Amino acid sequence: MDTTKKTIILFSGDFDRVMAALIIANGAAAMGDDVTIFCTFWGLNILRKPEKVQSNGKSTLQKMFGGMMPKGTRKLGLSKMNMAGIGAPMMRKACKAAGGMSLEELFASARENDVKFVACTLSMDILGFTKEEMIDGLDYAGVAAYLGEADEANVNLFI
Amino acid sequence: MDTTKKTIILFSGDFDRVMAALIIANGAAAMGDDVTIFCTFWGLNILRKPEKVQSNGKSTLQKMFGGMMPKGTRKLGLSKMNMAGIGAPMMRKACKAAGGMSLEELFASARENDVKFVACTLSMDILGFTKEEMIDGLDYAGVAAYLGEADEANVNLFI
Amino acid sequence: MDTTKKTIILFSGDFDRVMAALIIANGAAAMGDDVTIFCTFWGLNILRKPEKVQSNGKSTLQKMFGGMMPKGTRKLGLSKMNMAGIGAPMMRKACKAAGGMSLEELFASARENDVKFVACTLSMDILGFTKEEMIDGLDYAGVAAYLGEADEANVNLFI
Repeated sequence: MDTTKKTIILFSGDFDRVMAALIIANGAAAMGDDVTIFCTFWGLNILRKPEKVQSNGKSTLQKMFGGMMPKGTRKLGLSKMNMAGIGAPMMRKACKAAGGMSLEELFASARENDVKFVACTLSMDILGFTKEEMIDGLDYAGVAAYLGEADEANVNLFI
Repeated sequence: MDTTKKTIILFSGDFDRVMAALIIANGAAAMGDDVTIFCTFWGLNILRKPEKVQSNGKSTLQKMFGGMMPKGTRKLGLSKMNMAGIGAPMMRKACKAAGGMSLEELFASARENDVKFVACTLSMDILGFTKEEMIDGLDYAGVAAYLGEADEANVNLFI
Repeated sequence: MDTTKKTIILFSGDFDRVMAALIIANGAAAMGDDVTIFCTFWGLNILRKPEKVQSNGKSTLQKMFGGMMPKGTRKLGLSKMNMAGIGAPMMRKACKAAGGMSLEELFASARENDVKFVACTLSMDILGFTKEEMIDGLDYAGVAAYLGEADEANVNLFI
């Protein structure tokens, strides 16, 4: 049992849930913990490059998923009170007014502080995401790798 | 502390969240772990028999809940992009195209590999579900049993 | 490692998720465990006084958030089948018919049994909640305090 390791499964791609995950990850990293965030399903969206990447060999279904889902943190919506899209910008404004870090700053800080971001390969296959569409510096792994890390951690959250 | 035990509270009945829970459970079972999934609230839906079961003594409210909620894994909707019901079939198609297991195969595999499914009795009482409406081979228990198992596990997730 | 400590991050303000959190917290407290619930984002709503509290110096945005979000447990909606607001009263009725405790009774019981409720100060700043708007007897802390407690607990859930 290693008390200095934390894992988070980031299943959600909601602005507010991603924010909570990154705040916890940054907090733990600041205290010297090893932190791994496994991005799966909608959580993969935060790892996508913001620009459109041409990928051959996608099915129509995969093109649809790829086209409809947000690319990167800037396009995420709120889980509650999204109000047809104006909720997230409102929350962003409120964060800024409160002197807090933006979602992009939280994400950058996590990466600078060696929080490990893992893209779930099974979810990528299902949603048709290719490595070319993802930002650099990621790990790619499946559930066995997650379980191996969770066994070494003392806090494991599903967000 | 037993490093070979995992528990999952499956609160959600969303197709994608159920899928994530079953993938983790199957992965852990494949690595030799004991896994228990406590199904509570909407998570109970995956344990319902697909056919309509006649149950006497239900209140109108319980009949409404029972009638409106999905019976079994085949009827679940997505937590995001459900698009009036077409999201889940799309996700199913994408899973199949990716060569992944279907939700039903994941569920069957979990049961074959001795993942223990527990139906939360308090939630059943509230929603008016009777044991006759549930599939065979389940355990029935409450929060004390969950906490007893969680105390013995090293990974405890709420999904 | 202290096997008698549990932490819950209550991120959600949905009636059903709050109920699940309080049932687990009450169960653990009844078994003699120390339990801490960190209320963050929408979970803060359960800690708000039901009456309108005059607070000076709020921005328009903060007034909007404050005005739109539920004050206390009585106003929460369901995460699923909310049906334009009638879902939660239906669930309340079903709980009562099943002889279960109401959400307010669960909350009162948790407080009587020394479950510690912590209001996340960062979320309060973002949403513009002041201490005057919150019920008495709360702790106020941030992510570092959460992590400190989670390190001492053997079950840590994100709800």
